[in-house]
Amino acid sequence: MSHNSFGHLFRVTTWGESHGPAIGCVVDGCPPRLALGEADIQPWLDRRRPGQSRFTTQRQEPDQVRILSGVFEGQTTGTPIAMVIDNVDQRSKDYGEIAQRFRPGHADLTYELKYGIRDYRGGGRSSARETAMRVAAGGVARLVLGSEVRVRGALVQMGPHRIDRARWDWAAVEANPFFCPDPVAAVEWEAYLSEVRKQGSSCGAVIELVAEGVPPGLGAPVYAKLDADIAAALMGINAVKGVEIGEGFAAAALSGEANADEVRMADGMVDFAANHAGGILGGISTGQPVVARFAVKPTSSILTPRASVDRMGQEVEVTTKGRHDPCVGIRAVPVGEAMLACVLADHLLRHRAQNPDAPASARLPRN
Amino acid sequence: MSHNSFGHLFRVTTWGESHGPAIGCVVDGCPPRLALGEADIQPWLDRRRPGQSRFTTQRQEPDQVRILSGVFEGQTTGTPIAMVIDNVDQRSKDYGEIAQRFRPGHADLTYELKYGIRDYRGGGRSSARETAMRVAAGGVARLVLGSEVRVRGALVQMGPHRIDRARWDWAAVEANPFFCPDPVAAVEWEAYLSEVRKQGSSCGAVIELVAEGVPPGLGAPVYAKLDADIAAALMGINAVKGVEIGEGFAAAALSGEANADEVRMADGMVDFAANHAGGILGGISTGQPVVARFAVKPTSSILTPRASVDRMGQEVEVTTKGRHDPCVGIRAVPVGEAMLACVLADHLLRHRAQNPDAPASARLPRN
Amino acid sequence: MSHNSFGHLFRVTTWGESHGPAIGCVVDGCPPRLALGEADIQPWLDRRRPGQSRFTTQRQEPDQVRILSGVFEGQTTGTPIAMVIDNVDQRSKDYGEIAQRFRPGHADLTYELKYGIRDYRGGGRSSARETAMRVAAGGVARLVLGSEVRVRGALVQMGPHRIDRARWDWAAVEANPFFCPDPVAAVEWEAYLSEVRKQGSSCGAVIELVAEGVPPGLGAPVYAKLDADIAAALMGINAVKGVEIGEGFAAAALSGEANADEVRMADGMVDFAANHAGGILGGISTGQPVVARFAVKPTSSILTPRASVDRMGQEVEVTTKGRHDPCVGIRAVPVGEAMLACVLADHLLRHRAQNPDAPASARLPRN
Amino acid sequence: MSHNSFGHLFRVTTWGESHGPAIGCVVDGCPPRLALGEADIQPWLDRRRPGQSRFTTQRQEPDQVRILSGVFEGQTTGTPIAMVIDNVDQRSKDYGEIAQRFRPGHADLTYELKYGIRDYRGGGRSSARETAMRVAAGGVARLVLGSEVRVRGALVQMGPHRIDRARWDWAAVEANPFFCPDPVAAVEWEAYLSEVRKQGSSCGAVIELVAEGVPPGLGAPVYAKLDADIAAALMGINAVKGVEIGEGFAAAALSGEANADEVRMADGMVDFAANHAGGILGGISTGQPVVARFAVKPTSSILTPRASVDRMGQEVEVTTKGRHDPCVGIRAVPVGEAMLACVLADHLLRHRAQNPDAPASARLPRN
Repeated sequence: MSHNSFGHLFRVTTWGESHGPAIGCVVDGCPPRLALGEADIQPWLDRRRPGQSRFTTQRQEPDQVRILSGVFEGQTTGTPIAMVIDNVDQRSKDYGEIAQRFRPGHADLTYELKYGIRDYRGGGRSSARETAMRVAAGGVARLVLGSEVRVRGALVQMGPHRIDRARWDWAAVEANPFFCPDPVAAVEWEAYLSEVRKQGSSCGAVIELVAEGVPPGLGAPVYAKLDADIAAALMGINAVKGVEIGEGFAAAALSGEANADEVRMADGMVDFAANHAGGILGGISTGQPVVARFAVKPTSSILTPRASVDRMGQEVEVTTKGRHDPCVGIRAVPVGEAMLACVLADHLLRHRAQNPDAPASARLPRN
Repeated sequence: MSHNSFGHLFRVTTWGESHGPAIGCVVDGCPPRLALGEADIQPWLDRRRPGQSRFTTQRQEPDQVRILSGVFEGQTTGTPIAMVIDNVDQRSKDYGEIAQRFRPGHADLTYELKYGIRDYRGGGRSSARETAMRVAAGGVARLVLGSEVRVRGALVQMGPHRIDRARWDWAAVEANPFFCPDPVAAVEWEAYLSEVRKQGSSCGAVIELVAEGVPPGLGAPVYAKLDADIAAALMGINAVKGVEIGEGFAAAALSGEANADEVRMADGMVDFAANHAGGILGGISTGQPVVARFAVKPTSSILTPRASVDRMGQEVEVTTKGRHDPCVGIRAVPVGEAMLACVLADHLLRHRAQNPDAPASARLPRN
Repeated sequence: MSHNSFGHLFRVTTWGESHGPAIGCVVDGCPPRLALGEADIQPWLDRRRPGQSRFTTQRQEPDQVRILSGVFEGQTTGTPIAMVIDNVDQRSKDYGEIAQRFRPGHADLTYELKYGIRDYRGGGRSSARETAMRVAAGGVARLVLGSEVRVRGALVQMGPHRIDRARWDWAAVEANPFFCPDPVAAVEWEAYLSEVRKQGSSCGAVIELVAEGVPPGLGAPVYAKLDADIAAALMGINAVKGVEIGEGFAAAALSGEANADEVRMADGMVDFAANHAGGILGGISTGQPVVARFAVKPTSSILTPRASVDRMGQEVEVTTKGRHDPCVGIRAVPVGEAMLACVLADHLLRHRAQNPDAPASARLPRN
Repeated sequence: MSHNSFGHLFRVTTWGESHGPAIGCVVDGCPPRLALGEADIQPWLDRRRPGQSRFTTQRQEPDQVRILSGVFEGQTTGTPIAMVIDNVDQRSKDYGEIAQRFRPGHADLTYELKYGIRDYRGGGRSSARETAMRVAAGGVARLVLGSEVRVRGALVQMGPHRIDRARWDWAAVEANPFFCPDPVAAVEWEAYLSEVRKQGSSCGAVIELVAEGVPPGLGAPVYAKLDADIAAALMGINAVKGVEIGEGFAAAALSGEANADEVRMADGMVDFAANHAGGILGGISTGQPVVARFAVKPTSSILTPRASVDRMGQEVEVTTKGRHDPCVGIRAVPVGEAMLACVLADHLLRHRAQNPDAPASARLPRN
């Protein structure tokens, strides 16, 4: 029930502050004899790394991961995998103002009210920097899931601008700085976000995650449902304000007929005519792709002064200078993927603990 | 990490199937010396009870709760509180068809794929009947929170029809069969839902929950954030497909300026100009009302035949007869309230374990 | 982390007080499709049941178990198994004295200091009556372990009198009222315990548990070691003051040479020359029998007056009348067996979650 | 439920192998605003550090701890405290023999059977080196407990030689290399252990822990009893085979009259005439000193060849050369203290979560 851990059998604990000497995580419960090295983790971190386009913070963090335990001769041993990233871009600066004043939309005030103390340097523990370790853990989770499970994400809305789903192209996702699957929208977004950035403003985003190849049976009703755990994992990412599975909020407006995913058979396997359910029924995966979306609020760090208060209860104005992402939702894509991978890996282990003879695919009859 | 428990310090375990002899729950970790009797729980159950209008299932379940442990001479003792409701309306009927065929949109198929066995009578464990025990547990959670915390819910959208928020009236919520806070919409919904019901169809809904009086500081970053736990609690309710906090998905379309809740002081207390954050910043409560919404999909049990398969992998058609709610979202209102109350109670205990000297209100300076 | 649950994947939650309407438990995480009915549980309860000889309390509790959920058509479904036993022998009597006075050696005082309230009737939650549900849960755990794993216990010391291990006969255990494996000692103990009982005194005991057929690999280092979890499970039984694995405290006096269990091969399997380790090395089962012992203190309820205090802090004398076991250690035998079975079942599930390809026996080479 | 974490609210996760680059731990849930720096931790590590007398391994590990997170300007912040110790004495050597052969009494065989892989260098994860991080975590736990709680340990038996309790002197504990409280025994042990060491043999030990100033009320019946958690914590230390609370196994031979700790009042506080209970009744602390003992088996690494097998299932002989403690029980003293401190800190937080108004001392009447 630790505050800084998630997962049960595939369990991740993170530590570290934005401007401390390092950040790190411990991945416990990983099965043994998986080939693992830093080279399996680094590419995922590189996708999240800041400073790669003018649309993300210019803070320079190489985010070079080191594995300190749990791997022997290139293989996991079943013991805890400790990973560490040194913080190298800790510019010395005067934190006097931010130390005393609460930035609206940030966690400054709530940390103060809860703990009576906070590491104010760069957001401290509440900094999005922590999400680097989620991505590292997600890299391990992908190995647990195996190559048949593919977890991908894409930005489907930036500010008020949505993609045209008819143009969805996974290849486009890696070809623009926004993880946008719609090449046309990507071009439009570039102009839009440049303008937002110039104004010192910010915008939100919606990210869609798709996990293909997920075996049926993952999820433990009724309080460890797969969708419930996904919801917690995604809502727990910094700045996230909403989570959907499959049809999501739009399901409320559908009729029962329209929402029901009809079922047929194909090659001895269950074959759905649609996936409004997002691959989950009754909290358990169906074998269809698991589809989740989450909404990220606009970056709270903006140049326009906002009314706030300081630690003494004095009314002040706060302007957040510095190197910030005008749309933190962009870098939330690899973070969301990682969280989904971790949830799936955890449930894979949980599922086979209780149901070691369950089938890996939606074949009927089951036995 | 139990599959059928939630919460950590205020911890609820439920058991029971729709057509078994009884359903029940165990509430562990409740503080001692709270006045508690069945009369404190029954009213909440009565709000959720079926058969109260023609818009909910006509199944007759008195849902009479009995407390079997954890209370002595009218007070909680700190030991586990066991509550039980006998299932009385178990009509004997032929389950032959439903026993073999998977109802689209239901958990029939996924339970089969996961467990290789399922109690098919009335949905078994996946029946919404289980949510009665969530409501019972929520009744205890409200006592833990105390009278200063008020947790309420309302239906803000039925099918495609939303309320007019300008007409929001909490008093209206108890005055119509839909928990609708907009008296005008309630009248319109009556006509709409009657039509849906006559057609043997169904519709979805969106529920909004508001918790007032929540002290600041609840929530444990970074993996037991208050919003993450709320998301899991609500997404884990039957048929829920989406969860939002505060501005929710709409936050994605806002600018950073519009989304920032500016802060002033009033009577020594932090005073926000708005509540886009839904009362939570950085995973920790601010002292503002906690606001969450969740979307419920249309009831999967409809009269129109749908394509499906049976246990043997044969293609069949399924029509779900019987006594069903045309809009399960209605009865989800008290369930959502209960889940939110449970999450808050759990975090209240967690918070004071680590921060026994934290203030009960958002007063500054803190110390 | 619930206070009244134990186990992680095979998870047991108990509830109920000695003189409440009933006691019960919820067993969560049990694999599906195990044949289970009340008849599988009742025999274990009957072994623990009071009133079967003059050496146990004359309280008459039939301890008839009912299964209320989790079983369908004679098979487990993978959902929570709720079991209940009604309390039938609740003699109405005046608890005035015990209500105000703390019985030395009992939990009366500590419950008062912790909770400020206690159900004083018959010990309430701290009554050994709760252990009936452990035995019921243990019955389910045995099914999870399967017929190849055999968990047995025996009383090896009563008061100061130890058995002669050379006379160990498992058949004798069921042939005397003490679960004594030494038929000669059993006769001697009968005289001894009769005398203790006549004097209104009490004595302690040591119980030995042996689990044969345990596969190698159970136990999760370094903080969920099999022996650590066994220690917690046994120390958590009422009145237990010590736990040993294998050689136990006697290991301290051995030389490294004497204590090392040498290893040979037999039929492709690891074959140990001795079992000082009690079947566990490094917190992981070896495939040898798991051997544990635990010490039970003398029953605290005795007829001789003892100095104590009351709720008001007044000095008083307390004599505990009523129907008590002169040696509670006797009935701790089936309880200890049950706890060991539960720990093993939990670790079996945990082990196969992480190591699905691990061998069921200590065969070398492993792969 | 993580394998490598313990505690619930004060939660410790350790990672690292004997010959990896570093070992570390994460302490989560620590209350904020405790003064903490490396200087608060290092002295405890120095007590456990090897190479301080000829009676412990000559491996040279400075065990210099670094705090990487969770502390800001000399105070804890309530976020995870990461601590790391670099492994500096990793002599490069040929592990060929130990890589293939299982050392009797060690975890080599069981890791192989469980995981199919093991880091064989110096015992890898099963090395006692991991206990350094327990000691570091214990240093934090002591701060949580505050200065009024004092946790101390002493060696009360080495091999077959017990101390004379009449000569118990806490000052002596720090004055000899054995943590022996009996100055006379310490001299005798020096001769005894020198002889054991010269022979390349080893011996076991019994350690006694005493925690004074523990408030009443700690412990959560019935499955998180204080004694049960202490038992798990101590049994989980490398090489431990037995745990006792208070009178322990000797309680079995006592009469109920002799074992009952009679109670009187002194200055408004409960005052016990004895402490057979070891400060715990019904799983809850009484306010008396908490007393626990644990037995450590003789070091398994000895020079005399022992029969064993290798990974291929071939019968071999194994001699363990290298730098080993002839009596690992000595260095288990600070480790046991640390584990007890961690358990108490965890229960202190748990207790005040549920019982915020409970008294800090055993005063009557309670309210």
